[in-house]
Amino acid sequence: MLPTNNLVGPMLTDYYQLTMAYAYWKSGRQDEPAVFDLFFRKNPFGGEFTLFAGLEEVLRMVSNFRFTKSDIEYLKNGVQQTEENLEKQFNRALEDGLIRKTENGYEQYVFTEDESPKWIPVKQPKRNSKVKAPMAHCENEFFTWLKSIDCSKIKIKAFREGSLVFPRLPLIRVEGPIAIAQLLETPILTLINYPCLVATKAARMRLAAGKDKNLMEFGLRRAQGPDGGVSASRYSYIGGFNSTSNVIVGKTFGIPISGTHAHSFVSSFTSLDEVKNTMLKDSKGNEHDIKELALKFRSELGYTSTNDGELAAFISYAMAFPSEFLALADTYDIMKSGIPNFMSVALALNSIGYKPLGIRIDSGDLAYYSKEIRKFFKDIDKKYSNGFSKLLIVASNDIDESTIDSLNNQHHEINSFGIGTHLVTCNGQPALGGVYKLVEFNGQPRIKISQEVGKMTLPGRKTPYRLYGKEGYAILDLMISDDEEPPKKGEKILCRHPLNPEKRVYVIPEKVEPLHYCVWDGKRTISEEPLGKTRDYCLKQLSSWREDHLRTLNPTPYKVSVSDHLYNKMYELRQKETPIETIG
Amino acid sequence: MLPTNNLVGPMLTDYYQLTMAYAYWKSGRQDEPAVFDLFFRKNPFGGEFTLFAGLEEVLRMVSNFRFTKSDIEYLKNGVQQTEENLEKQFNRALEDGLIRKTENGYEQYVFTEDESPKWIPVKQPKRNSKVKAPMAHCENEFFTWLKSIDCSKIKIKAFREGSLVFPRLPLIRVEGPIAIAQLLETPILTLINYPCLVATKAARMRLAAGKDKNLMEFGLRRAQGPDGGVSASRYSYIGGFNSTSNVIVGKTFGIPISGTHAHSFVSSFTSLDEVKNTMLKDSKGNEHDIKELALKFRSELGYTSTNDGELAAFISYAMAFPSEFLALADTYDIMKSGIPNFMSVALALNSIGYKPLGIRIDSGDLAYYSKEIRKFFKDIDKKYSNGFSKLLIVASNDIDESTIDSLNNQHHEINSFGIGTHLVTCNGQPALGGVYKLVEFNGQPRIKISQEVGKMTLPGRKTPYRLYGKEGYAILDLMISDDEEPPKKGEKILCRHPLNPEKRVYVIPEKVEPLHYCVWDGKRTISEEPLGKTRDYCLKQLSSWREDHLRTLNPTPYKVSVSDHLYNKMYELRQKETPIETIG
Repeated sequence: MLPTNNLVGPMLTDYYQLTMAYAYWKSGRQDEPAVFDLFFRKNPFGGEFTLFAGLEEVLRMVSNFRFTKSDIEYLKNGVQQTEENLEKQFNRALEDGLIRKTENGYEQYVFTEDESPKWIPVKQPKRNSKVKAPMAHCENEFFTWLKSIDCSKIKIKAFREGSLVFPRLPLIRVEGPIAIAQLLETPILTLINYPCLVATKAARMRLAAGKDKNLMEFGLRRAQGPDGGVSASRYSYIGGFNSTSNVIVGKTFGIPISGTHAHSFVSSFTSLDEVKNTMLKDSKGNEHDIKELALKFRSELGYTSTNDGELAAFISYAMAFPSEFLALADTYDIMKSGIPNFMSVALALNSIGYKPLGIRIDSGDLAYYSKEIRKFFKDIDKKYSNGFSKLLIVASNDIDESTIDSLNNQHHEINSFGIGTHLVTCNGQPALGGVYKLVEFNGQPRIKISQEVGKMTLPGRKTPYRLYGKEGYAILDLMISDDEEPPKKGEKILCRHPLNPEKRVYVIPEKVEPLHYCVWDGKRTISEEPLGKTRDYCLKQLSSWREDHLRTLNPTPYKVSVSDHLYNKMYELRQKETPIETIG
Repeated sequence: MLPTNNLVGPMLTDYYQLTMAYAYWKSGRQDEPAVFDLFFRKNPFGGEFTLFAGLEEVLRMVSNFRFTKSDIEYLKNGVQQTEENLEKQFNRALEDGLIRKTENGYEQYVFTEDESPKWIPVKQPKRNSKVKAPMAHCENEFFTWLKSIDCSKIKIKAFREGSLVFPRLPLIRVEGPIAIAQLLETPILTLINYPCLVATKAARMRLAAGKDKNLMEFGLRRAQGPDGGVSASRYSYIGGFNSTSNVIVGKTFGIPISGTHAHSFVSSFTSLDEVKNTMLKDSKGNEHDIKELALKFRSELGYTSTNDGELAAFISYAMAFPSEFLALADTYDIMKSGIPNFMSVALALNSIGYKPLGIRIDSGDLAYYSKEIRKFFKDIDKKYSNGFSKLLIVASNDIDESTIDSLNNQHHEINSFGIGTHLVTCNGQPALGGVYKLVEFNGQPRIKISQEVGKMTLPGRKTPYRLYGKEGYAILDLMISDDEEPPKKGEKILCRHPLNPEKRVYVIPEKVEPLHYCVWDGKRTISEEPLGKTRDYCLKQLSSWREDHLRTLNPTPYKVSVSDHLYNKMYELRQKETPIETIG
């Protein structure tokens, strides 16, 4: 499978990855074996958990990791595009009238300096076809090598996508020739950081809203680029959302899509005359005039002067979606126009056997209006005994975790939240600081010493396990060195804080769960998991996790420990690598 | 030209655009003429200006706006992929060993529920090939129509990309059949909102850093998805950055790329024995041992115990990039190891005719270290008279506008900033609230009444002009109705606040600049502008703009006015559309 986004590949990277590749190659070290860990140092949003997401796209990227001929052409010669391509573009522009033939050659209509657009001479092919070649001074042999590399010598272990993860755990461990393993850094981080962040944000919103609420992702237009939108939809589904408004995500990943209509639809109608065809068939094939019925119910309800354009829009929408009628009720005045107009059409539909869905509001005091609307629905239900007290109330408008908490405190009556900006931009923490660090080179564990103790890396090949207690809850995660025996159920295990020598605890686990799986060994070793399964896995973990770890206010940190052996190994390495200063 | 991102098209949209299209079609109104304005209500980051960006991608999207056969298949029948495609995937998985043949059929290796991965039965073709069809109940004729539409009946006017823009101005005005113009809403907003935001953020950083500093965008790994990264690089260049680390952006748009090496490169070396080939040729072809020279200079400088692995890494990097030697100096200890090691190699290079570039630091107190390092460089220059006082100091690490301001106050000695997270995530305001509103339908101006006065839309077709005063500065932007004469130089023009009746001003402009250009009239009407030209245009405007509008602290708002005629038209419409409540 190709990466979802055509921009993903070895060129979606920081230039220093290529300069380092060249430096490794130049010194003949490109194939020396290295191990890198991907981890983060702090859970996002002030919380104490993170969801692991993005792995499937990493595997697709790794499967297709190859520099193309044109990539090499750019690096070596600064050629951006093939001449053939440029010629095609030129001819297309000529055809479209954007380039014209003159006596002296060709002219193109384009802005110049701070001037309005005008016709200026252009050569065939286009001027900017060549730019400065970034790696002009490198040997041909280097480019031959670069063209030849792929991930057939790479091995990747990782957590299962959708796992609950914590600071310092090696979410992904990449082993292989250093130059290639290093080249994978930027694409992997780019494909992991945001997915983890937005899946976590979505899960936090799910926890705030409760299991029974319907959560819809509506953020495409506020996302950071088209792919930000697509990633947001995909990974917020994993984190517990029910659907997205994003159509291409529905098509590509099979996620349910949802949506009704916009204010512009309502304001495009100004009078009832504008709805032409209003005859709707019931299940027996008999035709009824929905407009007439709606007007009858409107007067029955005692409303004579709601906005007619709005009513026309609702009737028109109901004609198109009689079985899925959900109306946006706040274009003019929610209680004086939107709700009565909705109700007139809903009663009309109901009278000929269609069940309306409900309403959406996108402005105002959502707690207050949801309660007023519910009261209105209940009164109607009392009058007509039609079950309308259960009609859906959908709310959108700048909703964040804290909005949901506040709505809960006010006993809102909302069934369904449409959430956009704050979800897709990950309000509160716009980036997860995931990093990718060298932990072993040529068989020797490597460590990054830092004056900030928290920034120290954990050296060597490590495997993480999750230890569970008697009550079925996870107690802590334990990393052991690859040269140790895995922890066993029922054994007394000394678990140590990675850096603080006094923080130690014995655990006798009821269950030991390995957390790393081999996902790539020169080729994919595991099939793609349907998104729905990843979502189920994710939600199952969240519902079986100790609540104090998940709550918003002062959550309890979940422990990530190392074995005594790993602790000692690390301690020795730190002692060795930190120089002792001589004073005086 | 195709959109840069393969996900961009009519399916990168909110589902309600399609339901509305159906409702318009169902009522036979799909071709009625509409006008939409794209505008925003508030400048981002607490500032008083915004840069307009993203237009080129909008035009590419519009040029290729067509639903494909497979799009229709999904909407109508819930088919996600063609059978042919699925078969191909199945066979590929079989080949790769991810699916195996058994006695009873096929098995796939995949995670199930909360279990470790195992082999489970799988049918050929894959199960999830069909999902719920979102528009199953719609008529075949609707899909025939949907398949037939394109933008040949659409007309678009817009500001030039890179323009300084302000709240309420119609950045883009789309005219055409309502169903199609409405379908363009989400893709256009997605392609405009983030580009404007990140270009503006970049310009603010440029203003903070000053004209002479070098600004490099380093944010790919922290961006919100691959495309977030690519957009960030592209549009921060327009806003005034000099380069990006993002290689694919260099290749695609010709933006200069920059980068050196990472900490991992340094920590992959542990001793000087690891650098094998250290013979470097000078311009005359004579070979010199750089390692020997570096060690000689290191002892000459009085440093005998800097980190040997680091020195080895620097020598190795210098061998690969002798003419572009720039070293990351903070892996161990900046002043005790990184800088002396760099200097040893830099002096070695210099002694055989290569000019080293400088150093990068990525941690610590950047103001303090930059000054210490500059002092060190100056001392070396004094000693060797080699011009080293001018070596580059590059700083990165969580830099934002406010960091730059603070560094300025401390008289830092940094030449070049590498900026990532805060730029690409647009710290301070992660989304621009650009909206797309119906302003005319069937020849009648439309208005969205709102209880919040600021949310009111400006009705009808409007054209914006920029009026300049005697000193050459822009005084204000004026929108006039399309049925008015454009403002003229030297004429006394009454300019009114769009909503506040008392705010009025007379302007006698020295120069009148039209701000709208026709960019699409059934087809592109203007060629793509090279990115460098857009950038020049942008920087030229910024440098000729009144500084008090641009400053960070309490900037002066720039006025956006309407003509008297437009004001009155709007006033009448508001009076007409806002119902008068009867009390008692």
